[in-house]
Amino acid sequence: MDRDEAVRLLEQVAAGSLTPGEALDRFATAPYDALVHSLVDTHRALRTGDPEVVYAAGKTTQQVLDNVEALRRSAGRVLVTRCSEEVAAALGSTGRTVLVGPAPAPRGLVAVLAAGTSDGPVAEEAALTAQAFGAAVERVDDVGVAGLHRLLAARPVLDRADVVIVVAGMEGALPSVVGGLVGTPLIAVPTSIGYGAAFGGLAALLGMLNSCAPGVTVVNIDNGFGAGVFAARVARRVGAP
Amino acid sequence: MDRDEAVRLLEQVAAGSLTPGEALDRFATAPYDALVHSLVDTHRALRTGDPEVVYAAGKTTQQVLDNVEALRRSAGRVLVTRCSEEVAAALGSTGRTVLVGPAPAPRGLVAVLAAGTSDGPVAEEAALTAQAFGAAVERVDDVGVAGLHRLLAARPVLDRADVVIVVAGMEGALPSVVGGLVGTPLIAVPTSIGYGAAFGGLAALLGMLNSCAPGVTVVNIDNGFGAGVFAARVARRVGAP
Amino acid sequence: MDRDEAVRLLEQVAAGSLTPGEALDRFATAPYDALVHSLVDTHRALRTGDPEVVYAAGKTTQQVLDNVEALRRSAGRVLVTRCSEEVAAALGSTGRTVLVGPAPAPRGLVAVLAAGTSDGPVAEEAALTAQAFGAAVERVDDVGVAGLHRLLAARPVLDRADVVIVVAGMEGALPSVVGGLVGTPLIAVPTSIGYGAAFGGLAALLGMLNSCAPGVTVVNIDNGFGAGVFAARVARRVGAP
Amino acid sequence: MDRDEAVRLLEQVAAGSLTPGEALDRFATAPYDALVHSLVDTHRALRTGDPEVVYAAGKTTQQVLDNVEALRRSAGRVLVTRCSEEVAAALGSTGRTVLVGPAPAPRGLVAVLAAGTSDGPVAEEAALTAQAFGAAVERVDDVGVAGLHRLLAARPVLDRADVVIVVAGMEGALPSVVGGLVGTPLIAVPTSIGYGAAFGGLAALLGMLNSCAPGVTVVNIDNGFGAGVFAARVARRVGAP
Amino acid sequence: MDRDEAVRLLEQVAAGSLTPGEALDRFATAPYDALVHSLVDTHRALRTGDPEVVYAAGKTTQQVLDNVEALRRSAGRVLVTRCSEEVAAALGSTGRTVLVGPAPAPRGLVAVLAAGTSDGPVAEEAALTAQAFGAAVERVDDVGVAGLHRLLAARPVLDRADVVIVVAGMEGALPSVVGGLVGTPLIAVPTSIGYGAAFGGLAALLGMLNSCAPGVTVVNIDNGFGAGVFAARVARRVGAP
Amino acid sequence: MDRDEAVRLLEQVAAGSLTPGEALDRFATAPYDALVHSLVDTHRALRTGDPEVVYAAGKTTQQVLDNVEALRRSAGRVLVTRCSEEVAAALGSTGRTVLVGPAPAPRGLVAVLAAGTSDGPVAEEAALTAQAFGAAVERVDDVGVAGLHRLLAARPVLDRADVVIVVAGMEGALPSVVGGLVGTPLIAVPTSIGYGAAFGGLAALLGMLNSCAPGVTVVNIDNGFGAGVFAARVARRVGAP
Amino acid sequence: MDRDEAVRLLEQVAAGSLTPGEALDRFATAPYDALVHSLVDTHRALRTGDPEVVYAAGKTTQQVLDNVEALRRSAGRVLVTRCSEEVAAALGSTGRTVLVGPAPAPRGLVAVLAAGTSDGPVAEEAALTAQAFGAAVERVDDVGVAGLHRLLAARPVLDRADVVIVVAGMEGALPSVVGGLVGTPLIAVPTSIGYGAAFGGLAALLGMLNSCAPGVTVVNIDNGFGAGVFAARVARRVGAP
Amino acid sequence: MDRDEAVRLLEQVAAGSLTPGEALDRFATAPYDALVHSLVDTHRALRTGDPEVVYAAGKTTQQVLDNVEALRRSAGRVLVTRCSEEVAAALGSTGRTVLVGPAPAPRGLVAVLAAGTSDGPVAEEAALTAQAFGAAVERVDDVGVAGLHRLLAARPVLDRADVVIVVAGMEGALPSVVGGLVGTPLIAVPTSIGYGAAFGGLAALLGMLNSCAPGVTVVNIDNGFGAGVFAARVARRVGAP
Repeated sequence: MDRDEAVRLLEQVAAGSLTPGEALDRFATAPYDALVHSLVDTHRALRTGDPEVVYAAGKTTQQVLDNVEALRRSAGRVLVTRCSEEVAAALGSTGRTVLVGPAPAPRGLVAVLAAGTSDGPVAEEAALTAQAFGAAVERVDDVGVAGLHRLLAARPVLDRADVVIVVAGMEGALPSVVGGLVGTPLIAVPTSIGYGAAFGGLAALLGMLNSCAPGVTVVNIDNGFGAGVFAARVARRVGAP
Repeated sequence: MDRDEAVRLLEQVAAGSLTPGEALDRFATAPYDALVHSLVDTHRALRTGDPEVVYAAGKTTQQVLDNVEALRRSAGRVLVTRCSEEVAAALGSTGRTVLVGPAPAPRGLVAVLAAGTSDGPVAEEAALTAQAFGAAVERVDDVGVAGLHRLLAARPVLDRADVVIVVAGMEGALPSVVGGLVGTPLIAVPTSIGYGAAFGGLAALLGMLNSCAPGVTVVNIDNGFGAGVFAARVARRVGAP
Repeated sequence: MDRDEAVRLLEQVAAGSLTPGEALDRFATAPYDALVHSLVDTHRALRTGDPEVVYAAGKTTQQVLDNVEALRRSAGRVLVTRCSEEVAAALGSTGRTVLVGPAPAPRGLVAVLAAGTSDGPVAEEAALTAQAFGAAVERVDDVGVAGLHRLLAARPVLDRADVVIVVAGMEGALPSVVGGLVGTPLIAVPTSIGYGAAFGGLAALLGMLNSCAPGVTVVNIDNGFGAGVFAARVARRVGAP
Repeated sequence: MDRDEAVRLLEQVAAGSLTPGEALDRFATAPYDALVHSLVDTHRALRTGDPEVVYAAGKTTQQVLDNVEALRRSAGRVLVTRCSEEVAAALGSTGRTVLVGPAPAPRGLVAVLAAGTSDGPVAEEAALTAQAFGAAVERVDDVGVAGLHRLLAARPVLDRADVVIVVAGMEGALPSVVGGLVGTPLIAVPTSIGYGAAFGGLAALLGMLNSCAPGVTVVNIDNGFGAGVFAARVARRVGAP
Repeated sequence: MDRDEAVRLLEQVAAGSLTPGEALDRFATAPYDALVHSLVDTHRALRTGDPEVVYAAGKTTQQVLDNVEALRRSAGRVLVTRCSEEVAAALGSTGRTVLVGPAPAPRGLVAVLAAGTSDGPVAEEAALTAQAFGAAVERVDDVGVAGLHRLLAARPVLDRADVVIVVAGMEGALPSVVGGLVGTPLIAVPTSIGYGAAFGGLAALLGMLNSCAPGVTVVNIDNGFGAGVFAARVARRVGAP
Repeated sequence: MDRDEAVRLLEQVAAGSLTPGEALDRFATAPYDALVHSLVDTHRALRTGDPEVVYAAGKTTQQVLDNVEALRRSAGRVLVTRCSEEVAAALGSTGRTVLVGPAPAPRGLVAVLAAGTSDGPVAEEAALTAQAFGAAVERVDDVGVAGLHRLLAARPVLDRADVVIVVAGMEGALPSVVGGLVGTPLIAVPTSIGYGAAFGGLAALLGMLNSCAPGVTVVNIDNGFGAGVFAARVARRVGAP
Repeated sequence: MDRDEAVRLLEQVAAGSLTPGEALDRFATAPYDALVHSLVDTHRALRTGDPEVVYAAGKTTQQVLDNVEALRRSAGRVLVTRCSEEVAAALGSTGRTVLVGPAPAPRGLVAVLAAGTSDGPVAEEAALTAQAFGAAVERVDDVGVAGLHRLLAARPVLDRADVVIVVAGMEGALPSVVGGLVGTPLIAVPTSIGYGAAFGGLAALLGMLNSCAPGVTVVNIDNGFGAGVFAARVARRVGAP
Repeated sequence: MDRDEAVRLLEQVAAGSLTPGEALDRFATAPYDALVHSLVDTHRALRTGDPEVVYAAGKTTQQVLDNVEALRRSAGRVLVTRCSEEVAAALGSTGRTVLVGPAPAPRGLVAVLAAGTSDGPVAEEAALTAQAFGAAVERVDDVGVAGLHRLLAARPVLDRADVVIVVAGMEGALPSVVGGLVGTPLIAVPTSIGYGAAFGGLAALLGMLNSCAPGVTVVNIDNGFGAGVFAARVARRVGAP
């Protein structure tokens, strides 16, 4: 039951061809999603402007291309994450994350810091996602805690940002140090970089969850996408006119 | 070496009583924290208005009172977390979290949802922390995923909020459901409520980290404080004039 | 917005004092739970006859008694789980699980097997829960896999039952053996009985999840309650007239 | 020693050609499985109509075909699970689960819900297994908790079903939400879908075991087969004439 | 149905007062454990001489005494494990393991080595159990791998023994070193001695399971009882006349 | 310094060409392994007749062949474990474990039970190892706990054996059931067979460590070799003339 | 057999009252530890000056006092670790670690840094142990990574030290930051400070093991003692004249 | 802002062309890393002589070669770790670790012991790293705890060394035994050698962390590089003139 049907039903009530009791029964026995639809409508509206997203891992290149084609018609832009080299090439890119279509006009600023070069692809996923979801992004790479001078040199970017994403593998200590320098909301992204007792990112994840710096939140291992969505939502609100 | 000392040093250079080389040596051999101080000063300023915090767990009642007394002199307010009943009583409260002194004028709105009654103390810690750090807070309790109507009834609060904190133990599913309803930045707090394979909050933590709703970030188990600080930082920025 | 309000609204439409469009807006902006209420109503009806449940762990004796008193007014019966000795005594019982009020007339049969004497309280929780939720129950205790003759002696009970609950700690092997004997739906309950590498019931839980007997399902460690609810639901359906 | 042999033995006793003591010795020294056979016979009878099952993982295509051929002679139908694409093609199918031969006449109804498209193959395994074991099946796909309207739209199927299977990966929250909507017996199947802290399905498994909805039981990660067998056993009993 | 009843049944067949078919039905419908009884009888005979065992943990002193009293009547001896100080005192002992009644005449020799003084109670449980189950025992304490000379001094005992039990906590390295010195069957018992990353005996358990010395088997953490039973079974066989 | 050198040294003392003090210095400064050699000599003698062992995993076919060739010269037989198909073929075998050279004359009997067909290669490793280390072996395959009649049919073999090896994956319940039937020393071998929450054999390992049957010892996951060595050592001692 | 006995034996050979063969037999059958004694002698000499150590946890106050009394006679000093308040008081101290007797003259310098006040007792254990084992110690407390200026202020101490111990709980990030500042050998000590996903020190332990700063080694959780012994050994060697 | 710039700035102050206040502002607004540079300068100097390091895992051969080429220009030597066979060949080596350029003149001695042949590559990484970082190295291979005579034969090397690295997989017991023999600082390196419950090196790691020998420190699984850097730092300090 969509809005039109509901109006028709009420018009029958107005016309007297349906009693209020009969109308209520019709509402009550209508397919659930009709009723629920109105509930979630507002929400859907809020999302306007968000890109459609295709998670490319486990899909063939053709499947990804078909998905992108289909979605791009309905949405202005499609973000493709976890691309293989082949998929990226087919989309005319070299990265693991590809935005098909133009990014929306940015509001607010997200800073994305990465601890090591190996953390780059996850930082790129976070950055491109934040852009695709409507925020401006500045990136700073290779900011390991074992080289404090590089981190301190990034302070101006941190100070400008409305929200900071910190990407790190191994022991995942960078968010704690950054969190001690700035009062900006900070999202930590553990990566699976490391070996042995890194346990595929578990060490970094636990480190970030136990950060001694207050106000650090964490997403799943390698989940640059989730951090980017969250950060863009914060940045857009802060930067809203 | 504070700013005054640095000026004096440079004045000596200007006066010719110190050569540039001698001045540089003085700078270089000054206590490190003098130099670093200026680096972190801006940051400290940003924090203005933040309460001092006392973590009461593992301290005697007298130690907590002494801490509170000492800090209140320098800061307008002191937030005391993880209070025993005895400590709370000594601070004139009955809660596990106590704010001594007035909350600052609020900017922005934080919604705090709790899944079960047992999650209440953690939700209270998050809420009181967010208030102490400068945000307005609205709470909704007992919003379990197994009773969707209560959750849907909370939608107006969710729609009003600048940022949402969702507190849940056991399987920690609530953030996923809330995250599917709203596009507001959402911070999930797993609690240690549950038994057996809940493993002291591990099940809820893993559930939240793997949320299928995009844009959910997570803090440590029972860490209402961290979620409150983060949320207040977002809310204050969004609500800034 | 409850049913009466909805009827009034529709009567206004019928009376022409409200246009269909206006009425729809009123529906759309009504508190969410009004709309949702109808959605979940059917479900609530299905539950009729289910007892109210009080989880006594972590509550004072007085809190439990107050809960029981309040709930008993609205429901015919109250099931109290995880009682301390003091709580049980206050309820006039000696067990860890207490049913206040009469059990409903039983439909279908649940067999509850326990591997060791230490598994008894969890088996009792499962059995009393199944009875409180409307099934008949037969119990067989001390049916360890290391004493096959006792297990085989329980075959007639297993054959009679509509659904079987098997409670076991340590290595949790009993469900596999029982599952090899009968084709009855079988719910396995791991208990925290054991020490060392039993890891608080983890060994039994993993054992049951990996059972080589097909058709074994599992609940949380020590969760006799959950097994009892599930089993009663199956038994009532099978035993429905 | 089968029934015929036992009768012959007793006839010799009756004829006096064997003393009671000699007969007893013959019974006592008979192969153990003769004696046990009678114990398990009833059970075997109960199983009548169940398909034979071939677990194809780790077998060559030829081995699977040979198995299927051999079993189909003795049983009316053979269920082949965990097929590679090559095995499926050789069996004339494209799915990961293949039923060779006709399904039995169905009794009772199993609803199979899947949270995401990636959970599809496990849901298919559960559904086809339930059919092969004698139940009717209705499937609903893509019912994520982050899109409540799709779930609520599935309510009529849930209401019709005698037992519900819910398949979900990542945080595995779907069973909790479904369990809050219906009082039908519910079997949760965690899948290995996800990455990072999903730990190969562990997050979903723990989430389901700790479900706040009462009456949820769980099977091993990706174990659609086990859920299907269990569900069919329940459905057949409920639907028995 | 015991042997006498079976004979009577067969005599009725011989006398013609029961047809073979009737007799078979009687056999088939006899309580299962009657049939199974004969299956396990041989086994029970093998156990002759084994003590009854009372696991005292979680029982009141009176319960333990009642158990001991009851069992001692039927068995010549009762082994009580995991005694509290109070239970031990009531049994006239000071140890955590108490044998009530005389040990059987020993056959074969079990050597019990303990790495540290804290491992003593587990070693004592193993030693007293082996004696109660019929083996002679020699103990060597404080044989840490960090003090090789003490270990090497124990070589004569190791050479004499038919089977060796090695008890160690912390890193659990002792079995590997002992296993490199002798070709005697070696049972390793990890203890929960240690702290931090000892994880309650997990480190020792994993160490022993991965021993580079071939022919080392392992029991549960702190399971001196299990090691003692196994070792006595080996020793009695080796020492059998 | 071997025995001959030591004798020569002492002869020089006897001949007066070396003072006692000088001799002692020579002993003290001799390479450590000379002194130690005598310590371990007895042990080496005990080992006489044991095969040399080559662990083929991670070696090229040529490396394995070279190893086997070199060792066979010094030892009568070489046991090669964890062979790839190519290595096995090069050794003229099809199994994962290959004994090059004749097995020694057997003493004592080892029974090797395997729960499922997939556990076969580990059971084969255990059996061939026990033979290579000097014991007779009888195997019984496909003895799952979900099919008790097959297990009970194996009782005569169990009764004959001096020591029993039980190989099982998944939930690893078989050793508990076998341990309840016989009083023979029992070594449990968990295998990595299973999926999901089997966690590569962890479930079976924990199950076996927590067996409710007394006197069960355990080896590492898939460690048929270790179980075979241990069992042969027991069997040879029991079967020694 | 000590050196004197060995000389006497060789004198008998020289005197002809013992043949070389007889002497060798006597050597070979001497208690093993006689032979081994000489092997380990050098080592023991190296240890000269090391204190005896009493691990007080799990001992009664009287047992600790008796141990201290007995050891102090033979050694100049006794280090008592893991003291309860009562034990400390009985030893005339208030700390958890107590050195009875004077510390040896120090050689080399150990710097001990602690991240938080709660890490103090472990830092104290490390510091007092290093002193008791012969090194000078300088401590710097409250050097969290979230407050870089305090850490940088500690640089002069770090520069002076021959070896650095860094004690930290929660995420354990401090060693990485310190390791990036100095090239001094650095030992990291994780503490059990923290809650929730700190898992009793596991997060800090994993963090330290995965440190991105090269040259960081780690000890067990809360193991200040082990770090102190290791550091003193390094410092004494560096500071040796 | 480097030293030259700072001097120029101060000269302007001296010349009066810049007021002290203006100069201070310039200092304060200079890029952070200028100020920080002086902080870390001393440190950098300390490192003089350290090789540059290329972690080859995950890089193409060409990338490694480019890295090596670029770094070799600035540094005298480049250490390449985790080489594939192809990378090693391109560097003219066959090992997994390659030092391009001459090792520095050694100071102090590092002993590297490896338990098994499979531990060789990690031991090689440790040894070559220690040499590249300026220490002399002696290696002893195949020193398993199950063959004590080989270990004791290595005592002279252990006695000579300033610091000892012990590399072992499986149960990781070797450091405990070595630590009982010598008082030399000892670094334990767990390797991922083993299978089943070795859990990729976890068993060895836990074993080493819980070593009963005092003064053992540990690095990450397979982290020969970290152990080598640490050991060289100790050795160079001990061996400094």
